[in-house]
Amino acid sequence: MTKDDLIQAHMRIAPYIHKTPVLSSSAINKQSGASIFFKCENFQKMGAFKMRGATNAILQLSDHAQERGVVTHSSGNMAQAVSLGAKQLGITAYIVMPSNAPAVKKAAVREYGGIITECFPSMEAREAAVEKIIADTGASFIHPSDDLNVILGQGTAAMELIEEHPDLDYILVPVGGGGLLAGTALAAHHLSDKTQVIGGEPMEADDAYRSLEAGKIMYNETADTIADGLRTHLGHINFPIIQQHVHSIIRVSEAEIISAMRLIWERMKIIIEPSCAVPLAAVLKERSRFVDQQLGIIISGGNVDLTNLPFNNLTK
Amino acid sequence: MTKDDLIQAHMRIAPYIHKTPVLSSSAINKQSGASIFFKCENFQKMGAFKMRGATNAILQLSDHAQERGVVTHSSGNMAQAVSLGAKQLGITAYIVMPSNAPAVKKAAVREYGGIITECFPSMEAREAAVEKIIADTGASFIHPSDDLNVILGQGTAAMELIEEHPDLDYILVPVGGGGLLAGTALAAHHLSDKTQVIGGEPMEADDAYRSLEAGKIMYNETADTIADGLRTHLGHINFPIIQQHVHSIIRVSEAEIISAMRLIWERMKIIIEPSCAVPLAAVLKERSRFVDQQLGIIISGGNVDLTNLPFNNLTK
Repeated sequence: MTKDDLIQAHMRIAPYIHKTPVLSSSAINKQSGASIFFKCENFQKMGAFKMRGATNAILQLSDHAQERGVVTHSSGNMAQAVSLGAKQLGITAYIVMPSNAPAVKKAAVREYGGIITECFPSMEAREAAVEKIIADTGASFIHPSDDLNVILGQGTAAMELIEEHPDLDYILVPVGGGGLLAGTALAAHHLSDKTQVIGGEPMEADDAYRSLEAGKIMYNETADTIADGLRTHLGHINFPIIQQHVHSIIRVSEAEIISAMRLIWERMKIIIEPSCAVPLAAVLKERSRFVDQQLGIIISGGNVDLTNLPFNNLTK
Repeated sequence: MTKDDLIQAHMRIAPYIHKTPVLSSSAINKQSGASIFFKCENFQKMGAFKMRGATNAILQLSDHAQERGVVTHSSGNMAQAVSLGAKQLGITAYIVMPSNAPAVKKAAVREYGGIITECFPSMEAREAAVEKIIADTGASFIHPSDDLNVILGQGTAAMELIEEHPDLDYILVPVGGGGLLAGTALAAHHLSDKTQVIGGEPMEADDAYRSLEAGKIMYNETADTIADGLRTHLGHINFPIIQQHVHSIIRVSEAEIISAMRLIWERMKIIIEPSCAVPLAAVLKERSRFVDQQLGIIISGGNVDLTNLPFNNLTK
């Protein structure tokens, strides 16, 4: 993956995505001792950075492949990203969702024109349903994170951030399936001499941390974290990129995630998913390491269920 | 109040406030049929437009008056605005708050350096406490909405919006005490040949609507609305400005307010107070009137209690 691959990906998807704003908070800067620039992918179309990778992957398909449609399985943002990405290009999107996926997520997929196939909530059932759709329709599978075109698309968020703030010491992103982390690491590697990339990960789903320690992909036996976007594991395509270009991974507790999420809601007045709070939680946890540094944080998405927020049970 | 008064107010407060961003939502534009530009005063310092009026009023005091401090009574955003406005200028702020004000509001005032005097929760007790502070300290009283310098300061939000979007057909703002509505009306009158100003008001606290009908200031016997910033009545200074320069007032129900608030949270991923949802609720209620129009809406603030949100009891 060269610098030119990234630039080409950005040019390719630019007509279909928002160039999201970068915000700062003097209160959070004061609390952290750092200068933090938040790249707000919660303001991205469909509410998350996944729009970038999905659109890039769909646009790289041949005309013939595009005619037959695309398919993915997801209960989260990738379902909406593939649906809307395909809709914008006039392409059919087949979305396999577990039967226990929240109604609000299914409704969003339908609104974006995705054709839902429900399945039993297990990875085997999801993959079997995808296989059947591919056999029936010839649709192309888009993996949520372990696909080079998806990784390049996700890297364009960091690319825009580095263009706007070229002197960042670190960019921190959450790590779930590894697509955003690998794309960000590629962008920093190719576009900056200085910027290092750090992943933030819940202690309760620390497969990426353990994978880097072990030198091979590790899995989560349990993933009991509020950061629902980060419960998945790395893939064989993004793992070597992460090994080569990511500086380190910082793990945080559930209480640290909720506290950082609340800080962003209260101080920045923006709605972010729990997953996006993980990098700020990491900065506050290892405060001394980041004092007086220039930091970028990618706010990965803002799709939360407003009827089920973690604030009610907290005392301040 | 001339155009030059407004321009002077803006120059005066500019070093102490944020020039807030203007956001749009394609989903909300689609739903309303209009092009809506949201001026995001929820991103203003201390989280609300009140920062503008408070700062302008404090800056208009003589050096001698500034030395003796300022005083206001408020359980809401004006308490924080006067505290932070004074703090930025090195001035003492005395804040009278009813004893039943939320702890989170008191904590915010203290954080901004305001000196709190608690009183019995009645208007008489609040005014008596203010009188005593004035007698003891010589502090100058800053009224939250019925003060020409406060009105001019609040008008600078619309001024920035019109500079960025000069072709607006209407600007809609919530109406509570009337400071924002009067300031916005002055700004539109002096800075645009085209833009009309409409107030949005809860049906449950429709004193401004009834005041314009009656030609004199009317009061609310009850004000059972979630839009807690809009429970107050107009004042003798802002009412004539509103009579002269405001196009009309649209009243909305509690369900319409909550629905519009949820729409902004879900689609724009920004945190707004219930009061700010009133203008969008008005646009959606009288949709046909606004179709194909260019609208500005001032999102007045973002200080909400995250532990007490109105979404839990709703079904979508």
